[in-house]
Amino acid sequence: MKRLVLIPFFFAILVAPAFSKDVIRYKLPHSDFPIAQAVEIPAGQSLIFLSGVGPENIDKSLPADGTAAYGDMKTQARSALTSIAATLKSMDLSMKDVVKMQVFLVGDAANAGKMDFAGFMASYREFFGTAEQPNLPARSAMKVAGLVNPGWLIEIEVTAVRK
Amino acid sequence: MKRLVLIPFFFAILVAPAFSKDVIRYKLPHSDFPIAQAVEIPAGQSLIFLSGVGPENIDKSLPADGTAAYGDMKTQARSALTSIAATLKSMDLSMKDVVKMQVFLVGDAANAGKMDFAGFMASYREFFGTAEQPNLPARSAMKVAGLVNPGWLIEIEVTAVRK
Amino acid sequence: MKRLVLIPFFFAILVAPAFSKDVIRYKLPHSDFPIAQAVEIPAGQSLIFLSGVGPENIDKSLPADGTAAYGDMKTQARSALTSIAATLKSMDLSMKDVVKMQVFLVGDAANAGKMDFAGFMASYREFFGTAEQPNLPARSAMKVAGLVNPGWLIEIEVTAVRK
Repeated sequence: MKRLVLIPFFFAILVAPAFSKDVIRYKLPHSDFPIAQAVEIPAGQSLIFLSGVGPENIDKSLPADGTAAYGDMKTQARSALTSIAATLKSMDLSMKDVVKMQVFLVGDAANAGKMDFAGFMASYREFFGTAEQPNLPARSAMKVAGLVNPGWLIEIEVTAVRK
Repeated sequence: MKRLVLIPFFFAILVAPAFSKDVIRYKLPHSDFPIAQAVEIPAGQSLIFLSGVGPENIDKSLPADGTAAYGDMKTQARSALTSIAATLKSMDLSMKDVVKMQVFLVGDAANAGKMDFAGFMASYREFFGTAEQPNLPARSAMKVAGLVNPGWLIEIEVTAVRK
Repeated sequence: MKRLVLIPFFFAILVAPAFSKDVIRYKLPHSDFPIAQAVEIPAGQSLIFLSGVGPENIDKSLPADGTAAYGDMKTQARSALTSIAATLKSMDLSMKDVVKMQVFLVGDAANAGKMDFAGFMASYREFFGTAEQPNLPARSAMKVAGLVNPGWLIEIEVTAVRK
């Protein structure tokens, strides 16, 4: 009988790394800005890299390479995030599973070439750091010189995990 | 004897996460654009992060900080991708193992500062989405304000996996 | 008794992927530039994604959205790297555990819009490729059109691993 008792014991020690623990989201210190300082993904989880996602065309009567067809930054950011949420859902994942995000923003000719970071954040806050979805990703955001579609003011790339 | 039968059974259940499944490449819906919508890397695989790679100098008689020494976008993209393929090969990997790519493009002063995205894609299609190499990575592409070498029109960063 | 001998044997074979091997850092060929050509993270390690980090404000009497409050590129790069080292330390990690870095640099209006790459490298070399800390990350660096804080000349994003 002793053998039977010992086997699970050895097992627990040796196999431990194969069981995935939960993702750890480190809070940004002294700040309530809705991104994580860092996110740790323990071994044993799947990583899902999504391609960068831009906004949907909301007015097909307008030129597809102009900003007007996609709306202002707030509209475009909400559109891109909505698409990402739908893609994640199709994979049985959700925004809760996003661990990393990069945001590529473009300056708006209609606004002296400045990027509308506040507009982006307004839509971002609808998806991250809410009561229903408190999970925050590690994030970098920057103004780039341009995106593949000249009408896009934003492209968002996320990485998610599956336990 | 019953014990001997049971042990492998428990084993299979508990250790399952330690065996790596295949990478899953999600197809971009309603599109034949040669990138994946997402790529999922199951637990148990190695991740390989490559540094960003620019083009090789093809004419050392020209200034090393000028675009002419590296060629046009199509030439530079093919050069960078060829270098990446060689690096992967030296690690016993190949373009088939690439799961993620970021492409940093620069506008060409010779073309009113526009980036030659079509030129990049022409070379990209030689390496990804072919009959011999159908595996597509998750990808983001953007125009940046510049690269470390002022002669470069492109830098490409890839992540690969090893099962 | 034979059974007892066999069980650990099967065990060792089947569970092997669950034990994490060391990170492999591939040296850049024909170069002593202090980045890795690639870094391979064997299965079984935790991945830690940090948010992008900019410099600390060093003179709060100056406008918080101007470059002067943060110093020149060398100063800003050292500040961002020092913050990253402190964040890693708070997680029981260090610069030795960094496997990937992306560096987003901004041109300096005080220098005809050029980015001070040499200034960045001077500070980078204090943290990577030293006798005490020889571990080099895979890295990409680029000039972006701007960062979220208009006074920042640099933002650095790193990924680390925990064995």
